[in-house]
Amino acid sequence: MASRIKIKKLLQSPPNSETVTAKGWIRTKRVSKQTVFLTINDGSCQQDLQVVLSPAQLPENLLNQIGTGASVAITGFMVASMGEKQNVELHGQQMVVLGDAPKYPLQPKAHSLEFLRTLLHLRFRTRTFGAIFRIRHVISYAIHRFFHERGFIYLHTPIITAADAEGAGALFQVTSPNPTAQAAAGPSDPTEAFFKEIAHLTVSGQLAAEAAVMGLHSVYTFGPTFRAENSNTSRHLAEFWMVEPEVAFNDLDDTIALAEELVKALLDALLANCSEELKWLEQRTIRNINEPSPQLPLLERLTFVRETPFTRITYTEAIDILMDALPNKNGTFAYPIKSWGSDLQSEHERYLVEQHFQRPVIVTDYPKGLKAFYMRQNDDNKTVAAMDLLFPGVGEIIGGSQREERMDYLTAAMQRMHISLADLNWYLDTRRFGTIPHSGFGMGLERFMLFATGMENIRDVIPFPRTPGHIAC
Amino acid sequence: MASRIKIKKLLQSPPNSETVTAKGWIRTKRVSKQTVFLTINDGSCQQDLQVVLSPAQLPENLLNQIGTGASVAITGFMVASMGEKQNVELHGQQMVVLGDAPKYPLQPKAHSLEFLRTLLHLRFRTRTFGAIFRIRHVISYAIHRFFHERGFIYLHTPIITAADAEGAGALFQVTSPNPTAQAAAGPSDPTEAFFKEIAHLTVSGQLAAEAAVMGLHSVYTFGPTFRAENSNTSRHLAEFWMVEPEVAFNDLDDTIALAEELVKALLDALLANCSEELKWLEQRTIRNINEPSPQLPLLERLTFVRETPFTRITYTEAIDILMDALPNKNGTFAYPIKSWGSDLQSEHERYLVEQHFQRPVIVTDYPKGLKAFYMRQNDDNKTVAAMDLLFPGVGEIIGGSQREERMDYLTAAMQRMHISLADLNWYLDTRRFGTIPHSGFGMGLERFMLFATGMENIRDVIPFPRTPGHIAC
Repeated sequence: MASRIKIKKLLQSPPNSETVTAKGWIRTKRVSKQTVFLTINDGSCQQDLQVVLSPAQLPENLLNQIGTGASVAITGFMVASMGEKQNVELHGQQMVVLGDAPKYPLQPKAHSLEFLRTLLHLRFRTRTFGAIFRIRHVISYAIHRFFHERGFIYLHTPIITAADAEGAGALFQVTSPNPTAQAAAGPSDPTEAFFKEIAHLTVSGQLAAEAAVMGLHSVYTFGPTFRAENSNTSRHLAEFWMVEPEVAFNDLDDTIALAEELVKALLDALLANCSEELKWLEQRTIRNINEPSPQLPLLERLTFVRETPFTRITYTEAIDILMDALPNKNGTFAYPIKSWGSDLQSEHERYLVEQHFQRPVIVTDYPKGLKAFYMRQNDDNKTVAAMDLLFPGVGEIIGGSQREERMDYLTAAMQRMHISLADLNWYLDTRRFGTIPHSGFGMGLERFMLFATGMENIRDVIPFPRTPGHIAC
Repeated sequence: MASRIKIKKLLQSPPNSETVTAKGWIRTKRVSKQTVFLTINDGSCQQDLQVVLSPAQLPENLLNQIGTGASVAITGFMVASMGEKQNVELHGQQMVVLGDAPKYPLQPKAHSLEFLRTLLHLRFRTRTFGAIFRIRHVISYAIHRFFHERGFIYLHTPIITAADAEGAGALFQVTSPNPTAQAAAGPSDPTEAFFKEIAHLTVSGQLAAEAAVMGLHSVYTFGPTFRAENSNTSRHLAEFWMVEPEVAFNDLDDTIALAEELVKALLDALLANCSEELKWLEQRTIRNINEPSPQLPLLERLTFVRETPFTRITYTEAIDILMDALPNKNGTFAYPIKSWGSDLQSEHERYLVEQHFQRPVIVTDYPKGLKAFYMRQNDDNKTVAAMDLLFPGVGEIIGGSQREERMDYLTAAMQRMHISLADLNWYLDTRRFGTIPHSGFGMGLERFMLFATGMENIRDVIPFPRTPGHIAC
């Protein structure tokens, strides 16, 4: 048998007389008297390879084996295709079935996303999820390249961490089921015997990254973080991916510029490398009348955000706009904005982005009571040097700040917010010894993925979503 | 004040008359009557910037503040340096202390690695750990680039997983401390209330990656994995990083070629991008007579392995060599090799690599009783299509195999090894529906880091090592 060539490469070759072998999984089969048409995909690209065989080559038992999902190896010649969908097709001369697929649960039709969530291990084989996870790769690689090219160090912050340092809310606990250790500590002792203190899954690598920039200048983390919130919504995951850059000597303006530059670099990578995938996802949304979207078609939306400067306003300006807004006056907001100091809800963020400015908006300088202890207090004594980047459709995609580098301000904020100084004594060392201005932000990868793919449910943009009651496979 | 320029860039500039500002942390200070010499580092590169100031610019109180660890901003001109260590130096005209560092625990001398392990958050600021974590970044980025350029998809497999699917040993358990959930399940109920079944921290992303290649062809994972083994050695971590490629249609030969290609690409990246860091680490080892190394100097060792073809032998050939080996005959091996079927211990691997072949060795086709259930059984019915790559100094750096794609062989192996078919029913679907030959391997990042840096303790090549009793900061 001729040596196997990936379908991605075969589709780029001109017709020629060399014998080639393709291997892959059957998507569709169409049988007529003179011809058997197969489409096969091997995962090397979004597109399928059309295969044309003569029924004479296929005894009945073989023809029955090659249903959707079966794996085959086909040897033949690449010829120019009469069909509209492809330039070339494979005229098969010999076929071997590698693995059949009786009772294969995926049929050559559109399955509901809900149904596919019950088959996480098989949904990789569909066109939609092939496109989504190829896009996730392209974005992830573009994140690494973006930071590498700017001299950042990829910092591997730990998953297992000590007590709830940030007050970020519901934490998962890690215990060792070692029987000896367990017996010694007793089942109700919260101090885990393996680590000798309470161990959690991390909610953020930021504090560790702040320590690291004092020696490495510019670092980023990129990996999973965790929340034990019992939320069963289309926007929550117990395990989700964050990218968190942190830069020595950067102020709030620098971190805003970095955030906008990152987002636009990721859109560039997406638009340059994923045209087939985006075309498929855009058609899918248009096709699927059960999932209407009020927004622009996917490609237009991505291009629009790529080309548009983001608007920057302060929280105080945002409140002025919202107080004046029609939905605030006529009571359409579920949470009316009554005064300065109100937290911005999703409906308010969407109003600013989708109605008022009609473009991504960066809101800065929030009241200090609404934000985390480590954000730098502004000279007004009321606000902090925070920034949130709000996107159409998905809301907050990035949150960041200049960090409080002044020891006295920092410890005062910690005391006000009941954060233990003792637990974070190591962190306070970063201010005790050669403190410097520095800034950073966190971007939720799945939030960005929702925007990038036009998907509506966060469970559909991560390979194996973890949510209450769901950790199978 | 002139705009700040990174030290990396300043050191590459020729002397010139523009005013520049450098910011960074003081490493050393030397004061004479006419001159104050400072070395400062800002984390942008391994090298320090030499700063020359006139004592007239430094009133006594300022001179006292600028000890090791203090952060400063210095404005002046870059001039040609008289010193041997650098081409240019900064002649300062103005200095601002950003943050002083009284009682800074790091002095301008070599601290022991043990001492620095008690100050994980500060060791980033030392030359040695600056070099190590810059190297870790270069290797990590090279891993991403290697796979991206070959069409692999970066697959984000989950950290939280269901029951111990692989029989890989001690697992951490994940629980939710949510009081309501806890009360409902009862403290001794092993079924965690949040996920409705026992939740663990992952030991490998391989099984999920095998499912993914059936739709994405070539994938890799790169992230943390966990073992709850109560081992306090220089080779064990509770949380460590693995890279695990998996490729559809690859056989054992393909996976061996991919492993050798990867390792050599990483050495290329290291040798091309980390000369200053490697020079520092090599000098450090030579300097430090308390940590003698029997091996070649670091750079020679890396270059040797880069240039040398790896030797490939079967397990059976390895046993023949070891049975004949002098240490086996004179009783120097702690675990003498008595017969075919013995497991290879670290001492045997080191004999093969360091004494017999004197180069990296790939051992293939181990007895099936020594290897995991998912490895493909060879036609001899005794061995499996496994491969281990053994490195000088560190032993096994990569372990992989062709996977058992035949359903009947796979389920027989699972039953023999008491792996639950029910728990892995989703995994068996990969063989039920269009099964194909496929292969992959796992590389331990910290094992590779030990080789790449010449460090001896695995706790010194990961930013925040997690070991029994250690999760602080």
